[in-house]
Amino acid sequence: MEHLHQSFTVQYNYNIFFTSSLFLPENELLSRFLVNLNPSVTVKKILFVIDEGVANAHKDLNTQIKTYFAKYSQTQLIQDILVIPGGEQVKNDTQYFDQVLEAINLHGIDRHSFVAAIGGGALLDMVGYAATVAHRGIKHIRIPSTVLSQNDSGVGVKNGINYFNKKNFLGTFSPPVAVFNDEVFLSTLSDRDWRSGIAEAIKVALIKDREFFEWLEVNAIALANRDPAAMNYQIWRCAKLHIEHIRSADPFENGSARPLDFGHWSAHKLEYLTNFEVRHGEAVAMGIALDTVYSNLSGRISAEDAQRVIFLIQQLGFELTHPLLQVIEGNSPILQGLEEFREHLGGELTITLLTGLGSGEEVHEIDADILKQAAAILNNQAAIIQH
Amino acid sequence: MEHLHQSFTVQYNYNIFFTSSLFLPENELLSRFLVNLNPSVTVKKILFVIDEGVANAHKDLNTQIKTYFAKYSQTQLIQDILVIPGGEQVKNDTQYFDQVLEAINLHGIDRHSFVAAIGGGALLDMVGYAATVAHRGIKHIRIPSTVLSQNDSGVGVKNGINYFNKKNFLGTFSPPVAVFNDEVFLSTLSDRDWRSGIAEAIKVALIKDREFFEWLEVNAIALANRDPAAMNYQIWRCAKLHIEHIRSADPFENGSARPLDFGHWSAHKLEYLTNFEVRHGEAVAMGIALDTVYSNLSGRISAEDAQRVIFLIQQLGFELTHPLLQVIEGNSPILQGLEEFREHLGGELTITLLTGLGSGEEVHEIDADILKQAAAILNNQAAIIQH
Repeated sequence: MEHLHQSFTVQYNYNIFFTSSLFLPENELLSRFLVNLNPSVTVKKILFVIDEGVANAHKDLNTQIKTYFAKYSQTQLIQDILVIPGGEQVKNDTQYFDQVLEAINLHGIDRHSFVAAIGGGALLDMVGYAATVAHRGIKHIRIPSTVLSQNDSGVGVKNGINYFNKKNFLGTFSPPVAVFNDEVFLSTLSDRDWRSGIAEAIKVALIKDREFFEWLEVNAIALANRDPAAMNYQIWRCAKLHIEHIRSADPFENGSARPLDFGHWSAHKLEYLTNFEVRHGEAVAMGIALDTVYSNLSGRISAEDAQRVIFLIQQLGFELTHPLLQVIEGNSPILQGLEEFREHLGGELTITLLTGLGSGEEVHEIDADILKQAAAILNNQAAIIQH
Repeated sequence: MEHLHQSFTVQYNYNIFFTSSLFLPENELLSRFLVNLNPSVTVKKILFVIDEGVANAHKDLNTQIKTYFAKYSQTQLIQDILVIPGGEQVKNDTQYFDQVLEAINLHGIDRHSFVAAIGGGALLDMVGYAATVAHRGIKHIRIPSTVLSQNDSGVGVKNGINYFNKKNFLGTFSPPVAVFNDEVFLSTLSDRDWRSGIAEAIKVALIKDREFFEWLEVNAIALANRDPAAMNYQIWRCAKLHIEHIRSADPFENGSARPLDFGHWSAHKLEYLTNFEVRHGEAVAMGIALDTVYSNLSGRISAEDAQRVIFLIQQLGFELTHPLLQVIEGNSPILQGLEEFREHLGGELTITLLTGLGSGEEVHEIDADILKQAAAILNNQAAIIQH
């Protein structure tokens, strides 16, 4: 029978800017961006939502923003700046999502105006989701405040909140109009948070970019010692690899393209089992260690290469594994996590393993015995067995 | 300072199928579509959500669907078919949105599975929104059951629910994976609903397609007398014009492209003022009459052309105007509606007026005196004054 065919493409563009002291009155970067986007629009408002952790660490941020927009007044700052808790709780309780929607409604933020979020990945996810669904999409700006969000989640296209106790049950694929990575926010991070995000750099280097992996080896001590120049380069290169992956594959995951999730299947389960006491990056470092040793034991990479990965993880100050990642007889949460991951993918399991330092392959089967052996090796902090 | 640039395009494709008796066991159309989309996926589920009005008018629909999927069992039907009220209330109260999310969660509908909605535009909007945000986008199928949704809203890319008493405050631009226009659902519509949707055909013909306008003139009596063949052609051509407009312009309205909303600015206000007792299509017919007479009085079209439009609207059985559309001294709701429309657009007013039968132009100013005169002319059912 006859039908009509609809077909069109939508173009998405945005920049990730790298700066220092975004709200210093001399720094025109943000104001110039706001003015130049759709210059024909006469009234543009901007609503800020700030992570409480950032607000506490930067007590004068509120005043800085107000001073900044008093100078650059072409964009109309909503004086009522929202401060909202950060961390996973902001995605678990819909009252925060509602709070952002209420502010959008109260202040008449329309599709030509902006919602800017300053904070860690969880806050950015929640605010991005609220901005995307309000009026079918208000322009949103991400100002990530952690290593993890500056080099990975904050520069991507996903947002979401948790619902029915399920991570990101509600959300969309929706690019921001811009990302501003400000190094000033990194200076006040705890050592754990400073380190944690680097796990995503190890991940992407291992499956995409051997040269970057070697750079991480050379700079591991500098990174662990909080050298700002090393951190800035790490963030820039990691962000670059992430956005290139999004661009080259299937940005909104409509087909079967896989996200960059090497080492993540066990990490997700571990975060959940520890009620997020193990941070995402810490769990990912353990997940990378596990899948790296598995890659060696299953004959994909040499013991020497696996050893280099383990050594890098240790030099950066990460723990290698966790008791809950062990495979034990009977009810192993990690094997259950594997099964949940299979379900999440819609039937067929797909896990990335290493075939070298800088290259990976997708496999559809994980051998429980090899996994048990890999976890045990890490647990014993034992040297990698020569394959 | 340095920055990274992200740029990518996303391709959207879907078909609008025209059929009769979609769930007849001999009709393979739906099953073939479901099986052929991403054939590598092993388990695909389908959850149905049905408009109560449709369920009441088609008592055996539930059984038909179950019989259909018992035969075409490659796709796993969720046996618990949701029946939900239709009409604007389904967008006003979030309990219905939650009900769809709960079913998606309970039955483990993932991104490879389908949510199919059968109903009028309001139900399709609500279900489309729920499907789009669950798991960052479950594939959704629209089966519009009214003239209005088959020829206009159901074939487009928007969804949404009302929030804070504002129409479509929450929603997204998100194309369905397919639309199935089944003529069987039209046969049970009331005369009001049968007629109402034809207003969108007049609208799109007037600004895009003179030949279609002339076809509507020739077939007005057949349409008013519920001739199925005339209705099928009207729906096919109107849907075609709508999807071509979406394709050619700016599908997700990221720039300043205007939707096809000739005659709509006053219609929205009237629907709201009458608490939706005046149906959308009825209000649009009055809005078209108003903007057509305005187009004549402001020197854009001849009185003869305006007369042809008014005559067509009357032949189809529509009312020409409503007391609330009159401009009176002091507090005119219609002038307030104009101001709200300006705010909704973000500062600059843009209204489409006719420059001929089949062509329009955008204007940024409406003269209150001319508007008053146009409304009065329609109110008096007077003949159009020769310009």
